[in-house]
Amino acid sequence: MDVKERLADYAEMTAEALEKYLPQTDCLQKRVIEAARYSLSAGGKRLRPALVMEFCRVCGEEPETALPVACAIEMLHTFSLIHDDLPCMDDDDLRRGKPSCHKAFGEDIAVLAGDALAMLPYQIIAEAGLRRALPKDAALKLISLLGELSGVRGMIGGQTLDLQNEGRKPDVPIILEMYRMKTGALLEFSCRAGCIVAGAGADKQLVAGSFGQRLGLAFQIIDDILDITADEKLLGKPVGSDLEEGKYTYVAAVGLEKARERAAVLTAQAREALAEFPDNEFLLELTEMLLNRVY
Amino acid sequence: MDVKERLADYAEMTAEALEKYLPQTDCLQKRVIEAARYSLSAGGKRLRPALVMEFCRVCGEEPETALPVACAIEMLHTFSLIHDDLPCMDDDDLRRGKPSCHKAFGEDIAVLAGDALAMLPYQIIAEAGLRRALPKDAALKLISLLGELSGVRGMIGGQTLDLQNEGRKPDVPIILEMYRMKTGALLEFSCRAGCIVAGAGADKQLVAGSFGQRLGLAFQIIDDILDITADEKLLGKPVGSDLEEGKYTYVAAVGLEKARERAAVLTAQAREALAEFPDNEFLLELTEMLLNRVY
Repeated sequence: MDVKERLADYAEMTAEALEKYLPQTDCLQKRVIEAARYSLSAGGKRLRPALVMEFCRVCGEEPETALPVACAIEMLHTFSLIHDDLPCMDDDDLRRGKPSCHKAFGEDIAVLAGDALAMLPYQIIAEAGLRRALPKDAALKLISLLGELSGVRGMIGGQTLDLQNEGRKPDVPIILEMYRMKTGALLEFSCRAGCIVAGAGADKQLVAGSFGQRLGLAFQIIDDILDITADEKLLGKPVGSDLEEGKYTYVAAVGLEKARERAAVLTAQAREALAEFPDNEFLLELTEMLLNRVY
Repeated sequence: MDVKERLADYAEMTAEALEKYLPQTDCLQKRVIEAARYSLSAGGKRLRPALVMEFCRVCGEEPETALPVACAIEMLHTFSLIHDDLPCMDDDDLRRGKPSCHKAFGEDIAVLAGDALAMLPYQIIAEAGLRRALPKDAALKLISLLGELSGVRGMIGGQTLDLQNEGRKPDVPIILEMYRMKTGALLEFSCRAGCIVAGAGADKQLVAGSFGQRLGLAFQIIDDILDITADEKLLGKPVGSDLEEGKYTYVAAVGLEKARERAAVLTAQAREALAEFPDNEFLLELTEMLLNRVY
């Protein structure tokens, strides 16, 4: 089992399905759809869809069954990136080495493309429930959970804390709470969602969610480390931008060495949670790969 | 039956329920919740919730049953206003006579408060389905329909056309298509949603939707007229702002007199559609009142 190969397979399945779920551009307002497609197709690792599909698989269901939810979470993640990059937010001109959405399409269209990608996920899951591609109960649970983990107690809450802390030096617990919401919440959703699609019990869902949370925290800490240490060309954005934007990260608070230790501990805890799942080599290797990434 | 009295009753029920559905502010990120509450409590007519509850009632179900959906559509409408007012969009400093959300809370928080209010509606409907306050099938249908009529083929599409047409003089059919999406879509949803909650058949849903569309078109045309003719204090925003913002409205295209005629014809068609529903006096009078409003 080659982890990069399966990751690439999942990414390809997701890219194809995303194209199917995007509205046609045979209309006057096609620019907003083109902007959404531009940001969706900028690629990235497609980590969240892979987690949805793989947790669905290790819980005994075909990964394809989870495709609507995989697309939903990738859209929601992309919406958060588009709005995060806006001048009134992080003001980033580059995303994954390409001009960010508002640089390519203008601020107004970027706001609307983000809005569209915020709502489409819920519609996609509901429609999968209506056409019985997902059990109706599962569809409702997924929508409710996605709302909770994306909203003011989840991702949006994390972005709010992030903005509030700009130019300040918050305590470490506040930084970690921000990461839990900003990055952990959607990864938690991805893992739990795969279990829900496969009809796994509440206990499995909780362990999967805890894995996602730890992975998310480790992922964010490594992002902070890479912001200082990475090769700018590989990273696809300027190095040191956190500091320049007045962001006081976990790394800034505890130093590089302690941050690396913490990421390793979190990764070990995440790997432990995976023991609850059979056939977990891909998830184990993926976790290892994310810890050791260089961009 | 006093139309203003029942409208006020529905508005009060909605305001109470909205408070229940907003997340608690006992958290670090409370500012984004306060911004959402600020815009939600700015009031307005609460026209959409009233339509949801009244269509539910005339289809034979208690209006209270529709409260989760009434709150959902009011949140979604408020999200669209918050993002519409942003500097990169319509750049409006005032909304309903008060500073707009970004003027009161900053642009970044306004973007996030809008984002939260875009997603919460889907969560609220799904949770109503899960706790059987709504039939599960109805909940999924409502989420799917809300996504369709709010998205790039509905409200977001209308806002996109609106931006594209700025400083241009689009043909009348394009203006009307923009109004259909921008204003008609959410009113269509409100009327159809009331029928869905009450378990009414597809035929009733379609007639209700067509009523909503016509009402929306008339409503938007009257908005354009009032932008020129209204008392600024009553209107709660500067008069003539459409022209100033480079917006070529239906009134600008066909003149005040023809626009008034068209609004009257649409209102008559809307009233006709209401003949399909029993006990329709409130809806008839509401329609009349919206046509004859002076702000």
